[in-house]
Amino acid sequence: MASTGRERLVVIGGDAAGMAAASQARRLKKPEDLDIIAFERGHFTSYSACGIPYWVGGEVDGPDALIARSPEEHRERGIDLRLRTEVVELDPDRSRVRTRQVDSGTEEWTGYDKLVIATGARPVRPPLPGIDAPGVHGVQTLDDGQALLDTLGRLEGDHGRRAVVVGAGYIGVEMAEALLLRGYRVTVLNRGEQPMSTLDPDMGRLVHQAMDGLGIETVAGAEVTKILTGEDGTVRAVATDDAEYPADVVVLGMGVAPETALARDAGLPLGSFGGLLTDLSQRVRGREDIWAGGDCVEVLDLVSGRERHLPLGTHSNKHGQVIGANVGGGYATFPGAVGTAVSKVCDLEIARTGLREKDARAVGLQYVTATIEATSRAGYYPSAAPMTVKMLAERRTGRLLGCQIVGREGAAKRVDIAAVALTAGMTVEQIVALDLGYAPPFSPVWDPVQVAARKAVAAVRAG
Amino acid sequence: MASTGRERLVVIGGDAAGMAAASQARRLKKPEDLDIIAFERGHFTSYSACGIPYWVGGEVDGPDALIARSPEEHRERGIDLRLRTEVVELDPDRSRVRTRQVDSGTEEWTGYDKLVIATGARPVRPPLPGIDAPGVHGVQTLDDGQALLDTLGRLEGDHGRRAVVVGAGYIGVEMAEALLLRGYRVTVLNRGEQPMSTLDPDMGRLVHQAMDGLGIETVAGAEVTKILTGEDGTVRAVATDDAEYPADVVVLGMGVAPETALARDAGLPLGSFGGLLTDLSQRVRGREDIWAGGDCVEVLDLVSGRERHLPLGTHSNKHGQVIGANVGGGYATFPGAVGTAVSKVCDLEIARTGLREKDARAVGLQYVTATIEATSRAGYYPSAAPMTVKMLAERRTGRLLGCQIVGREGAAKRVDIAAVALTAGMTVEQIVALDLGYAPPFSPVWDPVQVAARKAVAAVRAG
Repeated sequence: MASTGRERLVVIGGDAAGMAAASQARRLKKPEDLDIIAFERGHFTSYSACGIPYWVGGEVDGPDALIARSPEEHRERGIDLRLRTEVVELDPDRSRVRTRQVDSGTEEWTGYDKLVIATGARPVRPPLPGIDAPGVHGVQTLDDGQALLDTLGRLEGDHGRRAVVVGAGYIGVEMAEALLLRGYRVTVLNRGEQPMSTLDPDMGRLVHQAMDGLGIETVAGAEVTKILTGEDGTVRAVATDDAEYPADVVVLGMGVAPETALARDAGLPLGSFGGLLTDLSQRVRGREDIWAGGDCVEVLDLVSGRERHLPLGTHSNKHGQVIGANVGGGYATFPGAVGTAVSKVCDLEIARTGLREKDARAVGLQYVTATIEATSRAGYYPSAAPMTVKMLAERRTGRLLGCQIVGREGAAKRVDIAAVALTAGMTVEQIVALDLGYAPPFSPVWDPVQVAARKAVAAVRAG
Repeated sequence: MASTGRERLVVIGGDAAGMAAASQARRLKKPEDLDIIAFERGHFTSYSACGIPYWVGGEVDGPDALIARSPEEHRERGIDLRLRTEVVELDPDRSRVRTRQVDSGTEEWTGYDKLVIATGARPVRPPLPGIDAPGVHGVQTLDDGQALLDTLGRLEGDHGRRAVVVGAGYIGVEMAEALLLRGYRVTVLNRGEQPMSTLDPDMGRLVHQAMDGLGIETVAGAEVTKILTGEDGTVRAVATDDAEYPADVVVLGMGVAPETALARDAGLPLGSFGGLLTDLSQRVRGREDIWAGGDCVEVLDLVSGRERHLPLGTHSNKHGQVIGANVGGGYATFPGAVGTAVSKVCDLEIARTGLREKDARAVGLQYVTATIEATSRAGYYPSAAPMTVKMLAERRTGRLLGCQIVGREGAAKRVDIAAVALTAGMTVEQIVALDLGYAPPFSPVWDPVQVAARKAVAAVRAG
């Protein structure tokens, strides 16, 4: 006898993955068949956290512009959205979650037939002395962005304002640009030797040099030991092992980790990066009624065959679509990713996809590398801008393993060529033969990615 | 008994394909083993004909900037280059070519062991009354570009100068932009209903509208019947069936055809577009000692499986590399092309790859289409520019068949995503899953190509 009751879908987390799943499920299932309740502990839904640096830098308005779909819009579409409501316990054996209202502290249990975990990621925030002082900011949520802007507003008009950014990954370099645009003297404290550790160090060095040129001081090998505060308790400087860096404001860009405490406590399977493990349909491994997506899951790396943590809006949106289709009675899969990422610091563009040298070594792949310089347009065309392209290919087979690009206008999105080629398992020889768009305003006759591939072909042949 | 004699390579045509072949062969074979003689009937070698519109428009200097490698540089590298020397007969049975010096008329026979035919393409130039009048220009060679610039120089200072461009393909629209930049009132006479017949008409209409907006008058269904001249014999107007268009200068952009009279007279195999037919190594079919490449050959279309004429510098350069490697004793192949092309008219970007609707019908493929509008960057990011993306996918299988893009900054080179996917035989569903570069300054969270693919997936599912 088939069940005739209305089912309930509970979604934990109101950003990209959770609300895309809820929206897609809503499109596929009528309200009389599926009840959808979404819990979000903050004030906002479906927003672009990736846009926060541009909001802070004054390039875009916020926070409204960063919100793809407001709570009201979700409610109008038949999703019972509960803001400022945190899920504090997950009880998969009894198919229920315990929630707490952030403002009142009221708790209650809510049962589910199907559950979507989209709890996102939390910024790494080491327990250093002073780290919770006023003026020290993370930039993970719109609430974080607003808090930072409030601090910057209070400092407005002060002369010689200084900002220290801790960490030189995507968020770090993007926030360095934002603070530079706001008129701050910016110092980036980087634990490693080169910024952008998602690149190989030789490519990171190019970013370092360009940041120098922009007037952003980048300190290598800087291990932060404490945040120093003034008499009023607000931040005054950041201390490392061997120096102090004066700071009127500090931004933490030390990366993020999957927010999976709930899932861990409930006994759900986590991977080596602390993210939830799912199958191709984004169903949590071993669980019939629980799906997970977005920054709280690990993603299959299609090049290495290993799971990785790739917190990025594109994956979150895809996960949400896939989960929504599956919860809604269809079938969809997320096959994995190749680790593509693009970023910029002022006019410097940075892109990467696939494996770095150390990733290739870690999975025991033998490789050759090729690095070239080329221009974004025909060399004779106005505003042709230089770029450096590095390519990794498997020794002997010539299979593309990775590609990194550092350049100016027109550089970053060329990484898509390599991203598609990686997904298709192409060799560097096949990349040389690709029929890519050519006209002098758009590309040299050999696209820079193909110039790199030609050199990689030679390296593969040489051994 | 192995031959111990020095071999001779003869190359007919000194532009991209011919000189890339000669240069690559020179790198692989020492002068004591291989003699290389290249015949070129013009004054220039290895130049970017694609750059001529930007030279004419004053955006780039010319002609020197457009020359990748000068005759002297080729000679210094050990190539016996003979300019202003036309090959007037090919005698494959006796392995020799007859040449004529353009200036003196002197003729002689030159034998070869290996021959490369790289005779390029000639502009379509119908035998209309007045078509040879002063002020009527093709733009195929640097010599053509210089002649046009000389005419424009003579008109400098005149008021209300008018230019008529015959043809609305790549050369036509690029020359329309160039003449607009030079201050001309520009009329484009187009035989078809929409400009850019390499696009489907619905996408061509967008180009038409944009050209209107730029102040370029485009006349549809205009069949030119004659060129009218003034008392001094120079051009005065262009006449069609039903109108006359005043013109101080006329540019012919009616497309090009393979320049294969020599090859035809020698009995070499030509395809239905009049181009030489080769195998994957660019060897002329049925001939052991003759290779051909560039605008004079037909290219295998990887999507339709048919031969096409795709005169474009990227293919010419690849052909030259492949031929040079093979002549030099190695082995290389040119697997074919997917028909990618990008162009611009002022700030309008135009791109296409794969099959149009009529191409798909011609090869009996059933297809669905999807057309979407999206932005080049996150919608909230400054200078996010709109674009329209159309996608064709095979019915039932969902295999990508083609993609066309019309938009502004950041639109055209996105076609590379589709070009690589086409080459890999991906379905539109696989395109939706691609891990493409995302950050607000570079792309919405779903790249416009993926937005189109999502709609195409729905169309495939709907039948």
